[in-house]
Amino acid sequence: MAVQLSIGARVRKSPFFQASCKAGLTAASVYNHMYMPTSYGDPEAEYHRLISDVAMWDVAVERQVALKGPDALALARLLTPRNLDGLVIGQGKYVPICNHSGAIINDPVLMQVAEDEIWLSIADSDIQLWASAVAGTLKLDVDVYEPDVSPLGIQGPKAVDVVSDLFGDWVRELKYFGFRATELDGIPLVVARSGWSKQGGYELYLRDFNRGDDLWARVAEAGKPYNIGPGAPNYIERIESGLISYGADTDSRTNPFELGMDKFIALDQPHDFIGKDALIAMKKVGISRRFMGFIIDGPTLAATNEDRLLVSFDGENAGYVSACVYSPRVGENIGVGMVSTAPIDKGQTVTIYMDDGPRSARIVPLPFL
Amino acid sequence: MAVQLSIGARVRKSPFFQASCKAGLTAASVYNHMYMPTSYGDPEAEYHRLISDVAMWDVAVERQVALKGPDALALARLLTPRNLDGLVIGQGKYVPICNHSGAIINDPVLMQVAEDEIWLSIADSDIQLWASAVAGTLKLDVDVYEPDVSPLGIQGPKAVDVVSDLFGDWVRELKYFGFRATELDGIPLVVARSGWSKQGGYELYLRDFNRGDDLWARVAEAGKPYNIGPGAPNYIERIESGLISYGADTDSRTNPFELGMDKFIALDQPHDFIGKDALIAMKKVGISRRFMGFIIDGPTLAATNEDRLLVSFDGENAGYVSACVYSPRVGENIGVGMVSTAPIDKGQTVTIYMDDGPRSARIVPLPFL
Repeated sequence: MAVQLSIGARVRKSPFFQASCKAGLTAASVYNHMYMPTSYGDPEAEYHRLISDVAMWDVAVERQVALKGPDALALARLLTPRNLDGLVIGQGKYVPICNHSGAIINDPVLMQVAEDEIWLSIADSDIQLWASAVAGTLKLDVDVYEPDVSPLGIQGPKAVDVVSDLFGDWVRELKYFGFRATELDGIPLVVARSGWSKQGGYELYLRDFNRGDDLWARVAEAGKPYNIGPGAPNYIERIESGLISYGADTDSRTNPFELGMDKFIALDQPHDFIGKDALIAMKKVGISRRFMGFIIDGPTLAATNEDRLLVSFDGENAGYVSACVYSPRVGENIGVGMVSTAPIDKGQTVTIYMDDGPRSARIVPLPFL
Repeated sequence: MAVQLSIGARVRKSPFFQASCKAGLTAASVYNHMYMPTSYGDPEAEYHRLISDVAMWDVAVERQVALKGPDALALARLLTPRNLDGLVIGQGKYVPICNHSGAIINDPVLMQVAEDEIWLSIADSDIQLWASAVAGTLKLDVDVYEPDVSPLGIQGPKAVDVVSDLFGDWVRELKYFGFRATELDGIPLVVARSGWSKQGGYELYLRDFNRGDDLWARVAEAGKPYNIGPGAPNYIERIESGLISYGADTDSRTNPFELGMDKFIALDQPHDFIGKDALIAMKKVGISRRFMGFIIDGPTLAATNEDRLLVSFDGENAGYVSACVYSPRVGENIGVGMVSTAPIDKGQTVTIYMDDGPRSARIVPLPFL
């Protein structure tokens, strides 16, 4: 169904919004109270550009929550089950955040940008409220706020060429989630090796809202030899790569073990963190569902799903598929979702209730590619 | 500009979403991670229906944050500067929520629905995270969660007739924000005298997601004699009535005094609450800007504003207009926004930077009507 997106002052516009519109934006959503571009009208071209060349994405909706002050690290340690020992300026970490019940409430990338300043590059929930409630209640000596920072994604196999042409060969040496503060024609930014695809890429964390047009134009120009074009977090590629979309794949009870995040959950670290007791108890009991891939039988899926699709096994509800699509690279209909461990353990097929009727599907490990 | 709204599993659908689509939904936004209908294609008809007859609104995006347990009231007292003495089941209160710095982070209606259960009917920010961080950090004995509750608004001068035909004459006796739990054809709900307009009305808090179609159909049927039709929180009427839109009218530093909420800020109550020290300090210093109305010169405004508009006074930045439109009832271009106290105190005109150039405007008290 086609519904127009209301544009008004309540939802924020990214510093790249005008440039995105000029580049042919056709569809968008809202994420962290900001418009998030989702399509420029040719999904197939956007997919192939990401897989083969390079795409530029307005992902300013990845808002930053800054923790600044003497207790910045102490607060960060409280917020995530990941052990932050060895954190250094210049190397980010993926840090699941759980509530006191152990349910996941966000999965940001954490970057220590100064001795007393940490950024969380968040998914779509108000972690600024969460973190400032914790800090305020405990009277920690730390400010929690949203700085003027807006990421521009450059994703795809040729992203490294575009970004090294812009900044120099040092960007080739950055490890995954590595970053460095720099500037481009006087535009202040942080260059990070990161992004919500598995095709390789960088994010330029713009540090001056007013330079959005300038940065967009500079990247578009530098990318021309590499066939750059506008794009957005890609529906097909994220399923192929098994990337987690907080909110789409999770519900209010999802725990990090169900998402396969075990290696980030340091239950035996000496530091306390929110949700520790609950996660220890969960670990002991084990999980009853898991985030998995699906290969779905039947005719090629012509569209993306608008709703979660129910999954059944042995006649009983066994979870949901949160996203599914035909993958040109896998050559199958594929999906991701949360499914009961019973059919996983037995290696059996499940039934997915699609808009056009039930289909059988095999559960497979992620990623597909 | 026209951008399509992406529909997918990441953003939730209201229980009335399908019914809204069948009723001719043409535009929507996202609010509290859920699609929010904003237009059915005829803004003029929607306005007149609200002013003269009765409209039904899918406002399920007013999500509820439930505080349940022995410490529910203790937590609620911490969350709001309003004094909750005298709170009773059946009578709601408007309760601004501030952070530790005294900035406003939401402005819900609070309803005590049982001895140990309180709901906050929230604007667009994750107060569930805020409240559960406070409760968890202080180890309060209270669960914080989002219950299965979705309001359907019935707004306009004839709303009272529709709702009394459905539920009986007792609904006429409800005070503003008064409510009662009841049912309709076995559909569990709470009837409240409330809603985001000044035209009078009710909200039916549906307590079973699966009965959304049933409730919508029942209300549409009961409203036929009164010319009911679909609508949404109305852009023109909210400006005329001076209603605050959290997020549109506020920024990260907005305090409740700037919004004229003084009577809800009980600084001398014996109970502690978050932001008390900051608000006491603010009260002492006084405000430097205030949420006000504007009467804007020049040609009739043909469209609603997509962005905040800058305001200047004496050549200096003096705030912003967050919404403006031509009002058929006032017979002028009107707006609301946050403006420096300097021109207010001097009774002088300001300049507003519209898309088509600067215009002069008079600052006036709210509401317009």
